[in-house]
Amino acid sequence: MRQVSIIGIGQTKVDEHWDKSFRDLGVDAVLAAIQDAGSPPVEALYLGNMLAGQLTGQEHTAALVADYAGYRGIEALRVEAACAAGSSAFRVGYMAVASGLIDVAVVVGVEKMTDMLGNEVTAALASAADADYEVMHGVSFVALNALLMRRYMYEHQVERAAFANFAINAHRNAMNNPNAMFHAPLSEAAFGKARMIADPVSLLDSAPICDGAAAAVICPTARAREFSAHPVHVRASAVATDSLALHDRKDLLFLQAGRLSAQKAYAQAGAGPEDMDLFELHDAFTIMSALSLEAAGFAPRGQGVRLAQEGEIFLGGRIPISTMGGLKGRGHPVGATGMYQIVELAQQLRGEAGKNQVDCRLGMAQNIGGSGGTIITHIFESAD
Amino acid sequence: MRQVSIIGIGQTKVDEHWDKSFRDLGVDAVLAAIQDAGSPPVEALYLGNMLAGQLTGQEHTAALVADYAGYRGIEALRVEAACAAGSSAFRVGYMAVASGLIDVAVVVGVEKMTDMLGNEVTAALASAADADYEVMHGVSFVALNALLMRRYMYEHQVERAAFANFAINAHRNAMNNPNAMFHAPLSEAAFGKARMIADPVSLLDSAPICDGAAAAVICPTARAREFSAHPVHVRASAVATDSLALHDRKDLLFLQAGRLSAQKAYAQAGAGPEDMDLFELHDAFTIMSALSLEAAGFAPRGQGVRLAQEGEIFLGGRIPISTMGGLKGRGHPVGATGMYQIVELAQQLRGEAGKNQVDCRLGMAQNIGGSGGTIITHIFESAD
Repeated sequence: MRQVSIIGIGQTKVDEHWDKSFRDLGVDAVLAAIQDAGSPPVEALYLGNMLAGQLTGQEHTAALVADYAGYRGIEALRVEAACAAGSSAFRVGYMAVASGLIDVAVVVGVEKMTDMLGNEVTAALASAADADYEVMHGVSFVALNALLMRRYMYEHQVERAAFANFAINAHRNAMNNPNAMFHAPLSEAAFGKARMIADPVSLLDSAPICDGAAAAVICPTARAREFSAHPVHVRASAVATDSLALHDRKDLLFLQAGRLSAQKAYAQAGAGPEDMDLFELHDAFTIMSALSLEAAGFAPRGQGVRLAQEGEIFLGGRIPISTMGGLKGRGHPVGATGMYQIVELAQQLRGEAGKNQVDCRLGMAQNIGGSGGTIITHIFESAD
Repeated sequence: MRQVSIIGIGQTKVDEHWDKSFRDLGVDAVLAAIQDAGSPPVEALYLGNMLAGQLTGQEHTAALVADYAGYRGIEALRVEAACAAGSSAFRVGYMAVASGLIDVAVVVGVEKMTDMLGNEVTAALASAADADYEVMHGVSFVALNALLMRRYMYEHQVERAAFANFAINAHRNAMNNPNAMFHAPLSEAAFGKARMIADPVSLLDSAPICDGAAAAVICPTARAREFSAHPVHVRASAVATDSLALHDRKDLLFLQAGRLSAQKAYAQAGAGPEDMDLFELHDAFTIMSALSLEAAGFAPRGQGVRLAQEGEIFLGGRIPISTMGGLKGRGHPVGATGMYQIVELAQQLRGEAGKNQVDCRLGMAQNIGGSGGTIITHIFESAD
């Protein structure tokens, strides 16, 4: 099996893109990544997307974006695992290059959410949950996270305010990221007064609905220096699953797929949580940040929220998270998010994170589909 | 890179399954394939599906089917390329095993189309075409094929009756396939009088809307005999793309992606069309059969339809197609079709095709997404 490296990255700003279509966003990110890699001969495109069929009436998006990017004819496939679609496409790209079947591939995550009304987007997002046994009863995706957050607060005896730093950290880090959706700092007081969406999940616990695309070009590590002065090596790639429905799990408050995929990734990388210099986690809701830190081994059960309270998740802390704004501050165009995480991690490992630069050699990204039904973990290492 | 073999196959009947949900169909096919392989230790599941999000409100289907099949926790991803979703999942499974990352994987194609009204299904199927530049103008997927068929008839000076044998052959072969949707023979007279859907495409030129799932278990060829007395070896796996929109193509009547993926596949297998003992092609419409035979090199341009007229596509002919009924006779549950083609080819290569058995060593399957925007070709060889 061949080792694989990232040789180019590209992204659009996360925003409400009223002047750009789904294909425009995908093409912009793909061409930016290919240019960043010095225009190597791209043989395949893997596209992560969750909702184009439901929100824009367009399936078959991988061939479409390949064509409009100027690569008509090449292999192109779309991969989906709900909100983990972005990193699921990276996983397939990784397999393609590792196998020797493909030399240079571009992986892109794309989502265009703002062309529809809010209630239509809410209904579409619920398709990440179990349609027959959860959504059938009228529960939305936010409501499922509210159940988890309420239960976490009860079992671990914490107040809602304990989650504030997840949102504050994300917004603070987004300030220095020109591609982030939000550029406004967030205070503890504002978090406390935020409008409830599904109690105890407020507007400021939740990532926004938005549009965006992010892409990376990959090739065998042995050839990476031909194309990039700062390649980023893939040290681990792991996928694990759980039940989609929360009621099917033995322990509501533990992300079993997060644990499983992190363990597989640590074994591949020959490293543990103590070796990670930063962690791009899936902070779609503040409760997911706490649960992710616990599942990935950065905190014992019930203690994830303490890392936020104690500021250990800040840029100078023990395990910086959401360093370019995360899903809350940069934004969460769902099928693109996994690729934003990977692109931002590459920015950090290449030393190109500007004012948010973390001193780092090893970093981890974890992308969550649904309420933890699919969790995908990647570990990357700087070549410098 | 490791060689890959099929060690187990399974399928549900193609039908209107009023008593089975999407997950039920997927689980039935997955468990049948795993049982057929002697229950090897499955590490990953790759699921091909096009329309579950639009038709059943369920994305995130790979983790769901893995869980309900009893494999909660394993790697699971969904792959999509419109109507080529089934074989796109097989392509990813092939890469996973070839790379050495996964030893035993199950690949399943699933589609549940009959829970919605016909016009809703028609609208969903159109998402295989270019939503912004084709569907926006009100064209349906059948209408796009009607444009192609009309042009073919004009350019190559053939009557509609010339396509009759594609449908007749499919229905005749479906008679002996208990998993086929239709078990009624079709006469030339019936074909001639068939009700028009989008002139010149009639009801009998078109594959039906239906439900079904088909699955295969794969592992490294070096280990195949541990699990199966009749492994089927993957000799080639290739994906190619074209523009989604017909108006973007230089030559409307040539499936460029079919040519490209067939050429790649022939190169991998070290074989050509003359070496193929049968060809499971994508006969969603009779015009697609003619164009496929030409793109894959079985007939010169404009001569695909002659192979049907001369009976060379029948079981005893030069290149038998749709040997278990094809999309027209067995049925076309869109995201499952690519896996039905592969499973039926495995039945033939294992000598288990009953009354429809073709004397064969090498066979090819070609799965088409949209009107040729993605075309995926696989070549298989009998181990016997």
